[in-house]
Amino acid sequence: MKGLWLENKQLQLLSDIPIPEPPPGEALVRVLCAGICNTDLELTRGYYPFTGILGHEFVGIVEQGPENLVNQRVVGEINAVCGQCRFCRSGNSTHCENRTVLGIVNRHGAFADYLCLPVENLHIVPDRIPTEVATFTEPVAAALEIQQQLTLQPNHRVLVVGDGKLGQLVAQTVALSGCELLVVGRHPEKLANLEARGIKTGFADAVTDKAFDVSVECTGDAQGFAIARRALRPRGTLVLKSTYAGNLSLDASSLVVDEITLIGSRCGPFPLALEVLAQGKVDVQPLIHARYSLSEGLAAFAHAQTKGVLKVLLEMH
Amino acid sequence: MKGLWLENKQLQLLSDIPIPEPPPGEALVRVLCAGICNTDLELTRGYYPFTGILGHEFVGIVEQGPENLVNQRVVGEINAVCGQCRFCRSGNSTHCENRTVLGIVNRHGAFADYLCLPVENLHIVPDRIPTEVATFTEPVAAALEIQQQLTLQPNHRVLVVGDGKLGQLVAQTVALSGCELLVVGRHPEKLANLEARGIKTGFADAVTDKAFDVSVECTGDAQGFAIARRALRPRGTLVLKSTYAGNLSLDASSLVVDEITLIGSRCGPFPLALEVLAQGKVDVQPLIHARYSLSEGLAAFAHAQTKGVLKVLLEMH
Ligand SMILES: [Zn+2]
Ligand SMILES: [Zn+2]
Ligand SMILES: [Zn+2]
Ligand SMILES: [Zn+2]
Repeated sequence: MKGLWLENKQLQLLSDIPIPEPPPGEALVRVLCAGICNTDLELTRGYYPFTGILGHEFVGIVEQGPENLVNQRVVGEINAVCGQCRFCRSGNSTHCENRTVLGIVNRHGAFADYLCLPVENLHIVPDRIPTEVATFTEPVAAALEIQQQLTLQPNHRVLVVGDGKLGQLVAQTVALSGCELLVVGRHPEKLANLEARGIKTGFADAVTDKAFDVSVECTGDAQGFAIARRALRPRGTLVLKSTYAGNLSLDASSLVVDEITLIGSRCGPFPLALEVLAQGKVDVQPLIHARYSLSEGLAAFAHAQTKGVLKVLLEMH
Repeated sequence: MKGLWLENKQLQLLSDIPIPEPPPGEALVRVLCAGICNTDLELTRGYYPFTGILGHEFVGIVEQGPENLVNQRVVGEINAVCGQCRFCRSGNSTHCENRTVLGIVNRHGAFADYLCLPVENLHIVPDRIPTEVATFTEPVAAALEIQQQLTLQPNHRVLVVGDGKLGQLVAQTVALSGCELLVVGRHPEKLANLEARGIKTGFADAVTDKAFDVSVECTGDAQGFAIARRALRPRGTLVLKSTYAGNLSLDASSLVVDEITLIGSRCGPFPLALEVLAQGKVDVQPLIHARYSLSEGLAAFAHAQTKGVLKVLLEMH
């Protein structure tokens, strides 16, 4: 089969990869569509070590697996867990200490004709969600994780920093809480997507110091962090939704003096994400900036790295 | 009156300071005893700008003020607040944006014969608490703040990093929750204080990685932070109880991946601290390493800066 293979920071299109054989408990999925995300771009830059097929945002058709799943359209949770370790047993299986992660840690990913995942990771996609839209299930779930970790109320003033792929989805899901929301970014055309949905937006200078109960950092850079930090009232909460290249240098004393809470946020609930997408509560269409076939995968990656570009999709079949 | 005056990182004993006149709403307090804390040492090193009389941990006798307080032995909350700003009105008055702080920000402190504080800041000390012991009300309250911010349960594994003044009080107050507690430090004789109270202690190598639900950083240095961080299980909580000289460089991506919560913690509830001290639930006597008169204040500071020394008290009368 074809697949986008990463090795020594070198991404290649291979066409002679054997179709994987699902081990017991796993299903074989034929990939229909997959999305390129910032983590994929970071992996190609060598931020984390990984060798193999990239990709973790996908929709596919189960070809081998339990009867109730075969021929169904599915999405899949990306952490394949052991079910045995202390974290799995304490209900934190996304933090399993023996986990592999689709296209990220020790497991081949979705930028290929086929992938394997444990059966328990798969969720059937409701018919009414188009395949392209369902490709966003993983990042929408990640955005929804914020509201698993803290309760947003209508009287909360919330700031989202960043208007990229992640910021767009975080903003739309946060808005569902009915809170007082402001999204700041650097790209008028991206902010316009959100304005069109009735979400207030602006540039960094629209952020009043110490005025927000919660801020969500979706840029992954130190300037974004600084904006999210200065926006918070004492005892406010800063949600870290992005990863950072290298260490972040911060004024820890001011966190103590202002009694700030910093909370890291990662993978979220797939069933809720599918529900939100099925109900059309989040609009991902304006985020799709390009579509490529798998054979044009390298061009797709080049496009995804271009400034200002949001989601680039790979369509396999 | 006499007082320890800080100016341009220079601490001096002055003897010709006028006794202050309490403005409306404030009381005049004759200081009986005051404790030197790390914040005082940091102020003399110029970490924060301050000019005036140092000191914020004290017990005194009210000489001028409302009838119910005059001649009473009191302790005092250190934040003098406006009552009007958005933070005061939202119940976060310790974060008042117009606050002055006793001996720390724009308000003369307790290392003098007299001080002034708003009447509402004062709390009568129950008779059964000796004056020396009551001097610890402020730091005991600060230690108790942790349990205002998060609920510690008997099945929680909690790590306290640091065996200094702050670590000692944090450890003793955390132990009251009945949780599974380990305290790590570098000083066998300080750890022995805690062992004597039935608290498990050890050196840094006693800390198993990713084994604790909560860790409390009480050292204010980067190594202490690193220990507190590596001790946490995914989705664990790191309480920052110390301030840091300069910025702290940290791996923010790992906070995201492990969904760690970082929470800054500062001043706490005086009434609860007095209750805990009155009931003898926290033993501060082993922490008192020296007593000096105010006239020997400079020697007291020199002593307080000596390695391995815990609390040094100034006894005024
Ligand atoms: Zn992703
Ligand atoms: Zn596991
Ligand atoms: Zn202090
Ligand atoms: Zn105020």
